[in-house]
Amino acid sequence: ATITLLPGDGIGPEVGAEAEKLLLAVARQFGHEFTLQTGLIGGAAIDATGNPLPEETITLCKQSDAVFLGAVGGPKWSDPNAPVRPEQGLLKLRAELGVFANLRPVAPHPATAELAPLKPHLLHGIDMLFVRELTGGSYFGAKRREADAAVDECRYTVAEIERVTRRAAQLARGRRRKLTHVDKANVLETSRLWRSTVTRIMDSEYPDVAYEHVLVDAMAMHLLTRPSHFDVVLTENLFGDILTDEAAVLAGSMGLLPSASVGEGKVGLYEPIHGSAPDIAGKGIANPYASLLSVALLLRHSLGLEAEAAALEQAVSSAISDGVLTADLRKDHPASTAEAGNAVLQ
Amino acid sequence: ATITLLPGDGIGPEVGAEAEKLLLAVARQFGHEFTLQTGLIGGAAIDATGNPLPEETITLCKQSDAVFLGAVGGPKWSDPNAPVRPEQGLLKLRAELGVFANLRPVAPHPATAELAPLKPHLLHGIDMLFVRELTGGSYFGAKRREADAAVDECRYTVAEIERVTRRAAQLARGRRRKLTHVDKANVLETSRLWRSTVTRIMDSEYPDVAYEHVLVDAMAMHLLTRPSHFDVVLTENLFGDILTDEAAVLAGSMGLLPSASVGEGKVGLYEPIHGSAPDIAGKGIANPYASLLSVALLLRHSLGLEAEAAALEQAVSSAISDGVLTADLRKDHPASTAEAGNAVLQ
Ligand SMILES: CC(C)[C@H](C(=O)O)[C@@H](O)C(=O)O
Ligand SMILES: CC(C)[C@H](C(=O)O)[C@@H](O)C(=O)O
Repeated sequence: ATITLLPGDGIGPEVGAEAEKLLLAVARQFGHEFTLQTGLIGGAAIDATGNPLPEETITLCKQSDAVFLGAVGGPKWSDPNAPVRPEQGLLKLRAELGVFANLRPVAPHPATAELAPLKPHLLHGIDMLFVRELTGGSYFGAKRREADAAVDECRYTVAEIERVTRRAAQLARGRRRKLTHVDKANVLETSRLWRSTVTRIMDSEYPDVAYEHVLVDAMAMHLLTRPSHFDVVLTENLFGDILTDEAAVLAGSMGLLPSASVGEGKVGLYEPIHGSAPDIAGKGIANPYASLLSVALLLRHSLGLEAEAAALEQAVSSAISDGVLTADLRKDHPASTAEAGNAVLQ
Repeated sequence: ATITLLPGDGIGPEVGAEAEKLLLAVARQFGHEFTLQTGLIGGAAIDATGNPLPEETITLCKQSDAVFLGAVGGPKWSDPNAPVRPEQGLLKLRAELGVFANLRPVAPHPATAELAPLKPHLLHGIDMLFVRELTGGSYFGAKRREADAAVDECRYTVAEIERVTRRAAQLARGRRRKLTHVDKANVLETSRLWRSTVTRIMDSEYPDVAYEHVLVDAMAMHLLTRPSHFDVVLTENLFGDILTDEAAVLAGSMGLLPSASVGEGKVGLYEPIHGSAPDIAGKGIANPYASLLSVALLLRHSLGLEAEAAALEQAVSSAISDGVLTADLRKDHPASTAEAGNAVLQ
């Protein structure tokens, strides 16, 4: 299998290095051939080529089975009105790979639950899988400036909603068979199309999966008051961006949460959900677990290596239980990025 | 002063009755003349007239100094694809009154903090005022259906951003002089216009107010990890809808949070931020405090009666401290709506 590594910016290269070590170890231990190749994206790509997603990178990614991405962005390229920005590279890559379903599991590890801002009894039993639509909505709609105004268009086609709903429903079948669809159907026309399309697909194709529709504002509350109620949560791009970050807090640290972005094509894109964290970049103290768990998702979803994925997740879980935690998770004697990575390697 | 009461649906009439009693008591005790008049809105208006906001109601509201609204909506009118819906009445009223700034204070009462899902130490010192833009964005933009797609347009003019920014900055001057502006400037064109406009207005007109820009996804986390950091939070309509509901959880119950919607015109609109709660409607157990606190905002912002507003807020606070709490806040021997209202009246 061929895997493209896109380290990106900030702590991206540091956590990416641990992901790379891990992939090599999995290949060795389980007898696989992994061809690893590296490409430029984000601010690093802007600095080297002027383009946040060079053609070369796109080609590398499309020729792979899976792509691992560290993180993009940083203060050096942070002017939102600049013509060329690191995030454009990430958004373009998602579109080029057609990875319309962004999977973000949230299941806090008991050992880090005490770090979460929620009271412990609320954290008990949380096991959610967000399925965020990733290649549509206002992220990719028409945008324009008028003389004294700005406009963003949020557009969804029936086909875009259908395919991500099917993906979410299939995932629910492998879990607790519950799907919560989140929208703002009392205000938005796109939400009304989402609601009727989700209803039709679920009723006709997935009668064995229970589903409900919840308004996005109510969901922002429910995530805090009864988080263990939810199984698979399906939503559009922008709502997913906001709600998954809110839910991430339940896990105690952003440094623990992986994501997988998949589509109909064979190439999946795997990234930790944290950002480039410029404030701690270059210090060797970033938490590599979200990246290692993203590698587990890569092994599972793109390479079909379930046993290897489960072994890796188990290894991360053990390292956490053993207290091998970076500075985001413990103040006294925190582990370095490499120490945490090595603990998992063992 | 003339005040229009729009009880609306569900628990709206019940909490509205307490608001009315309170207004009459304030008039009596402080020697004011309040003329109270009642109008139809929401599902009740649809049932009576077929229109969620009859012309008569608009006329009543525009001839008043302030409008108190209970809540709109309920299962009877909940089909989001129905041509006529209760929420349309509320959205149209906001537009008709030109109340572009929705103020939502979040400052948990110590006596209810233990009911909030956050750990107690995080709740300490929370004192935020959300200023949500209320008459623009995708709530009021062009919407359309295409053969196999739906579109919502989010549009903001410079003037719309300027006026709500000024309102927020002025409010910050009466508080801790800190303003947090929330957007998604790394993706949305409207957010980039917000960011540059807020920057220009703050730098040129409010050099004495500190400000920062925060991305909406990051803000969804910060509200949980460091809520006491924030003073005035300024954001566009949809982000404000989501973030204020998330923040509401910090207060322990939605039943405690009031809101004021104000514009350049003289008429303000005051509503509890909770909904019509059809599951408990008609039982006399709804929490009236959010409505009574909304009346306090009405006295302050529309009638200029600061002493009366403060006295009322103090009375609600004392009733809460005394344990006069409805069923959302205490399970054993909860107070009824009327008992809670009467406790404040004393
Ligand atoms: C960097 C940014 C464009 C991106 C997004 O909004 O999708 C990030 O927040 C994420 O959630 O992956
Ligand atoms: C009822 C609904 C249209 C409304 C909104 O989204 O503005 C409500 O959620 C609110 O926050 O006042």
